[in-house]
Amino acid sequence: MVFSYENLYSSSTARAKRSEIRELLKLIARPEVISFAGGLPAPASFPLDKIAEITRQVIEESGPQALQYGPTEGDPKLREELVKWAAKDGIEVDLEQVLITNGSQQGLDLVGKIFLDVGDPLVVELPSYIGGLQAFNSYQATMYGVPQDDLGMRMDLLEEKLAELKGKGIIPKFIYVVPDFQNPSGVTMPTDRRKRLIELTMEYDTIVIEDSPYRELRFEGEQPEPIIKLDKDGRVITLSTFSKIFCPGLRLAWAFGPEELISKMVVAKQSMDLCSPPFNQAIAATFMSQGLLHKQIDVIKELYYKKRQLMLSALEEHMPEGVSWTRPEGGLFLWARLPEHMDAKELFEEAIANNVAYVVGSAFHCDEGGKNTMRLNFSYPSEEQIPEGVKRLATAIKKTM
Amino acid sequence: MVFSYENLYSSSTARAKRSEIRELLKLIARPEVISFAGGLPAPASFPLDKIAEITRQVIEESGPQALQYGPTEGDPKLREELVKWAAKDGIEVDLEQVLITNGSQQGLDLVGKIFLDVGDPLVVELPSYIGGLQAFNSYQATMYGVPQDDLGMRMDLLEEKLAELKGKGIIPKFIYVVPDFQNPSGVTMPTDRRKRLIELTMEYDTIVIEDSPYRELRFEGEQPEPIIKLDKDGRVITLSTFSKIFCPGLRLAWAFGPEELISKMVVAKQSMDLCSPPFNQAIAATFMSQGLLHKQIDVIKELYYKKRQLMLSALEEHMPEGVSWTRPEGGLFLWARLPEHMDAKELFEEAIANNVAYVVGSAFHCDEGGKNTMRLNFSYPSEEQIPEGVKRLATAIKKTM
Repeated sequence: MVFSYENLYSSSTARAKRSEIRELLKLIARPEVISFAGGLPAPASFPLDKIAEITRQVIEESGPQALQYGPTEGDPKLREELVKWAAKDGIEVDLEQVLITNGSQQGLDLVGKIFLDVGDPLVVELPSYIGGLQAFNSYQATMYGVPQDDLGMRMDLLEEKLAELKGKGIIPKFIYVVPDFQNPSGVTMPTDRRKRLIELTMEYDTIVIEDSPYRELRFEGEQPEPIIKLDKDGRVITLSTFSKIFCPGLRLAWAFGPEELISKMVVAKQSMDLCSPPFNQAIAATFMSQGLLHKQIDVIKELYYKKRQLMLSALEEHMPEGVSWTRPEGGLFLWARLPEHMDAKELFEEAIANNVAYVVGSAFHCDEGGKNTMRLNFSYPSEEQIPEGVKRLATAIKKTM
Repeated sequence: MVFSYENLYSSSTARAKRSEIRELLKLIARPEVISFAGGLPAPASFPLDKIAEITRQVIEESGPQALQYGPTEGDPKLREELVKWAAKDGIEVDLEQVLITNGSQQGLDLVGKIFLDVGDPLVVELPSYIGGLQAFNSYQATMYGVPQDDLGMRMDLLEEKLAELKGKGIIPKFIYVVPDFQNPSGVTMPTDRRKRLIELTMEYDTIVIEDSPYRELRFEGEQPEPIIKLDKDGRVITLSTFSKIFCPGLRLAWAFGPEELISKMVVAKQSMDLCSPPFNQAIAATFMSQGLLHKQIDVIKELYYKKRQLMLSALEEHMPEGVSWTRPEGGLFLWARLPEHMDAKELFEEAIANNVAYVVGSAFHCDEGGKNTMRLNFSYPSEEQIPEGVKRLATAIKKTM
């Protein structure tokens, strides 16, 4: 008889489900499917030769250190490079305000660990990044959604929500936003909304988690102020990552925040994995110290700009009336809206039959809304695939309409 | 006014403290201190040239994949190598029973995540690995300690404890053991105790977490059966790591277990960090596929055997009567006992004044026992440092006696 584990599981395990996106990606792995579903960077952008050369240098110059355990907070050299990197945007942080993580996903998990007990309240965007929802869900948090418009989370509705919660004695542990070229919607929050966001955290005694993996990938328009830069009161943790501006395969990201909060995250990380790979950190630090990150970002921006153009043109050309989409000024994604009565989940089967894939928008909603929406990724598909994929998608939509 | 975060923290953050060992390691970083305190592998053993060569190959042959996101469960090539590796010890596992983690510390964290709610019971050894205690503590578990003797956890006392708990309606979520050259004690559990352990899990409806980072590092004597091999009922998760047999700086380890439990761990890992670095996994897979891991283990064993000999001889030569120690047949550590009335914490100051360091044994006890014990590491200090360090330690002990 096989023993049943049911009585041994934690309550979060009972609740946990595999990511819809990641399970989906397995199903659509057929080579004939053009996928706008993933969120992968274009591998053509990876600086293979530079990484090979730098790795050789790292092993030669500091192999025994790079292959040993390292400090939980991260390699001091890499953290110093990141302090300098922050300064270019006017963000002033000390070394003690920087933590290296295994991708920003670990940053989100750490935020969950230090703030969330079962049932604890927090505020997210509608729609919101699915990895954030998953991380906070794993702590069994209670999530309150505040709708976006084309300028990000609506501050009037946030204020309403915070007041309503306060009336019930509820103070959110934090407000989670992806302010730049949001995943999934592609929209960016302007500076005035960011200022208002900080004001509201002060009024309602909470903090902001600013998750900004795409900020450096702006093709056009002006960059609003980073939220952390607007904060004078220690109310912002900012998560940034090498995954979208260098490569994801090193699994390196970082968090900036008030020293006290970073220190709590360091303690939590000690029990999670002791430290991020010193080998990978040495590679990233050397890549930065040689001034290569700026150049790498230019390469990626040029590539994605072209791909976004191709996708926008194709949407313009093929989509039937009633379908609308965002026009992100950077990043990896855009967001399409079908007519109200349509359901992107129902459409999915027809799309797959047409050999094209996307992620249904409801996956990004903590309230099961967004049924008529979808996320389209333009960074990963090739320049040949983008127009053809959009054409296939339009065919599926027209047929289902 | 600076805002206070106290109301925002989770209860585990309120409880968390930095690791005593890791904080200690910072204090004793003076070059004149000979440290037996760390648990670091000898960097002289790291195969730098091989890693440089293999990294070049990985980038050349599969750079775009290795630098991209990968599956949460780990690189299939690495997992296949590990299935083969297991077979050499008679451990039969399928690919679906293997999960790659960021060091075994993440394995411990994942075990905590899938099994432990606040207050949940589990059984640990007295003494036990501090990283395990930290991980389970971060889930606010209730830990019950069962004493070891020179053959590991005492099964008679375990049975007593399980019966006592059952009388109170308490079933431990799992029993956590480090059966081979335990950290901290250096002792190994013989096969008959391992069999009894499995019987007891069946009788008391629980499972075993077998944490075995040092098993491959046996200098002499015969290897008992791995606990997972004795289990026919899906009651064992085994954690193993590259940190002690290859190098820690890649932060790679793995878990073997029943498919259902591994699948739960995969879901939990998705929300923690998406995946372990595919770059590092490709390096480890290539290292294994070239048959280099066996050779590497031979190099390490020769090195550590010599160091253990040096430490045992020096202890024999310098220690005053009343001090005893274990004689581990492998691994990185041995365990010393001072006379009952002595306190290793009080001794520590005198030891540091003599420029030698160790870890106080109480840090490894969930019940604050072990005051007269200490852990001595012999893998990291040099062959010159070991006799000199033991001499200094003996001087400090004699003075304090």
